[in-house]
Amino acid sequence: MSLARAGRPRLQTQRRPGTTARDEILDAAAELFTTLGYSATSTRTIAELVGIRQASLYHYFDTKSDILCALLSQTVAPTLSFVDSLLQADPALTSVEHLHALAAFDGEQLLSGRWNLGALYLLPELREAQLEPFWSERERLRLHYLEVGRAIVAETGVHETAAELPFRLVESLVNIRSLPAGAAPDELPLHVADACVRVLGVADDPILSLRMRTHEEIGRYTAAGVTSGP
Amino acid sequence: MSLARAGRPRLQTQRRPGTTARDEILDAAAELFTTLGYSATSTRTIAELVGIRQASLYHYFDTKSDILCALLSQTVAPTLSFVDSLLQADPALTSVEHLHALAAFDGEQLLSGRWNLGALYLLPELREAQLEPFWSERERLRLHYLEVGRAIVAETGVHETAAELPFRLVESLVNIRSLPAGAAPDELPLHVADACVRVLGVADDPILSLRMRTHEEIGRYTAAGVTSGP
Repeated sequence: MSLARAGRPRLQTQRRPGTTARDEILDAAAELFTTLGYSATSTRTIAELVGIRQASLYHYFDTKSDILCALLSQTVAPTLSFVDSLLQADPALTSVEHLHALAAFDGEQLLSGRWNLGALYLLPELREAQLEPFWSERERLRLHYLEVGRAIVAETGVHETAAELPFRLVESLVNIRSLPAGAAPDELPLHVADACVRVLGVADDPILSLRMRTHEEIGRYTAAGVTSGP
Repeated sequence: MSLARAGRPRLQTQRRPGTTARDEILDAAAELFTTLGYSATSTRTIAELVGIRQASLYHYFDTKSDILCALLSQTVAPTLSFVDSLLQADPALTSVEHLHALAAFDGEQLLSGRWNLGALYLLPELREAQLEPFWSERERLRLHYLEVGRAIVAETGVHETAAELPFRLVESLVNIRSLPAGAAPDELPLHVADACVRVLGVADDPILSLRMRTHEEIGRYTAAGVTSGP
């Protein structure tokens, strides 16, 4: 899966968004997996949609699983990178501030890609072992949410079971997004971030100041030149 | 899809749970759809797993889509029936009590089936028109949650966008359930019901009494002899 490996010459002009052939393959695969279905899509169909030969596709990806794994990693990697940035915030963030900013950023990621890749999370085919790199990253993210959530309920007194729910609230944006167009309201990720802290028993008063801090942290991260997209 | 239509004699003794051949077909299909995947499963494989001839399967279901539609309806129909029961509660329930009982019951439904059918909700194949009866029912349930949620935020002052989230919190039990075994804690549906009202700005104090009322309503519904499972 090396970015540097050269592909064959293309059959025709570029059809898909992306600065490299690899990106175009990923975009075409994302469209097919989320509309036609993973099982029903072949690497040949993907190559056809990009306008390259199937053999050229194999310069970039060995199997259909590898393509899926790369796509799914795109839904998690930017948020894990943002977590690193949050941990370096100065002054340090409280657990509540950390969770709010994390949920707002993660939610924005899930809503902003061209294709609703999160809709693939529950596919039976995803249990394939080749997807292990993706599962490890996603589990790392889930456990991070859980750890921050537990620190918050230790203060608010809400039952510890609730600490699992912020991750799930953010993930539900995948389901909300699958509704007919126009259903996702403005600032939805911020409302979900508010919900994440509320569900752990945080009172309403500090939510406005939380939103300001979240805005600052996302701004700082973006200004640092780290791309927030795949 | 008539229950009364007679099937052919079976090849062998019963292999699947269920009181009718139709139930056995549904159980086998649920296993295959949630483990192997919907696209990868044929009506022939389903018939083999039940131990009947493929032709016998067609006495009960015309297509694979019909089987999927019947399975998905099982995830929604009991909860819609419970909503009817809640609307007849005496004394009448407040919106908060209604939502809490609804979420606890619905969550229990999603967790209790033998197979995690909700994992199929986001399948691209689900956009097929033949699944319309299921989608209508599920949309009816979503809009009911939304209406009750809006009545609650009108009192608490939380932003209206949050009214969409209780439905999503309950739905996330499908994702929590897909974690490795043992991950779902005790009383999870009740904790999720608590979260549903908390996310709409309901203070912590009344949650204990809410749980008592929820317990009463589920008890009343069950005692009325309405089966709560498929």
